[in-house]
Amino acid sequence: MSDEFMRQAIELALDNIRRGKGGPFAALVVRDGRVIARGTNLVTSIHDPTAHAEIVAIREACRALDDFQLSGCDLYTTCEPCPMCMGAIYWARPARVFFACASQDAAAAGFDDSFIYDQLRAPHERRRIPMIPLLRQDALRIFAEWEAKPDKIKY
Amino acid sequence: MSDEFMRQAIELALDNIRRGKGGPFAALVVRDGRVIARGTNLVTSIHDPTAHAEIVAIREACRALDDFQLSGCDLYTTCEPCPMCMGAIYWARPARVFFACASQDAAAAGFDDSFIYDQLRAPHERRRIPMIPLLRQDALRIFAEWEAKPDKIKY
Repeated sequence: MSDEFMRQAIELALDNIRRGKGGPFAALVVRDGRVIARGTNLVTSIHDPTAHAEIVAIREACRALDDFQLSGCDLYTTCEPCPMCMGAIYWARPARVFFACASQDAAAAGFDDSFIYDQLRAPHERRRIPMIPLLRQDALRIFAEWEAKPDKIKY
Repeated sequence: MSDEFMRQAIELALDNIRRGKGGPFAALVVRDGRVIARGTNLVTSIHDPTAHAEIVAIREACRALDDFQLSGCDLYTTCEPCPMCMGAIYWARPARVFFACASQDAAAAGFDDSFIYDQLRAPHERRRIPMIPLLRQDALRIFAEWEAKPDKIKY
């Protein structure tokens, strides 16, 4: 059963390449043995650097379920997720993630996520994109107001 | 000038709390001294776990520029970005990131990104969400087809 879903994802990724819609990646979200959402990489066709297959599939699945959590869902992705997509997975909280290609396979094809993983581990002052602290004290009143709000919806 | 943009972001985050649109976070994208996109956390109102302020602002800025890169842009965010948003920042490649609150301030208010940072550093078999390899050999033909494609658009 799992194999069948991954084969569908592989076909979807091949189709994405052939149609020129974006990078060679696809993902499915499955619940109770049924595909509830599909996603492919659309970065270059819709001009959205966040439109990785997993993000597109997660957003679509949440829309289908009308929920911001993917409880009880499995995510199938044709490649080990990048840090952005892993972050999205932890926020969406599916039950399991199945992945086909390894990140080194993606790196060999020109998609080097390991650079980003390394950057996340580096201290701010050694990052390639400068991270500059500003007005922390002023901004702390945002969290104070959040904590005092009686009807906040946690996530 | 930088202070002024961060103050705008802080006001936007406070407004987001008061309107009940989502978590206490906001971000701006600035180019050539002008705000080209605004984003607030919309996770709970639009049921999208990826709708963090930075992601919303990056997507909006890319739409405004009709590009999948934020070259020459600065991102202002009211809080140090989570791993998902840091990933998105590295894919979008703005020039600089200004942040106000530190991640420990967010953690104290109930938004604990450090759990996700720790998970990304852990090997697959020790992750809270199981990461299960499947059909790697079958999927490698996706990258083979990508590499053979003459008119691919790299990003």
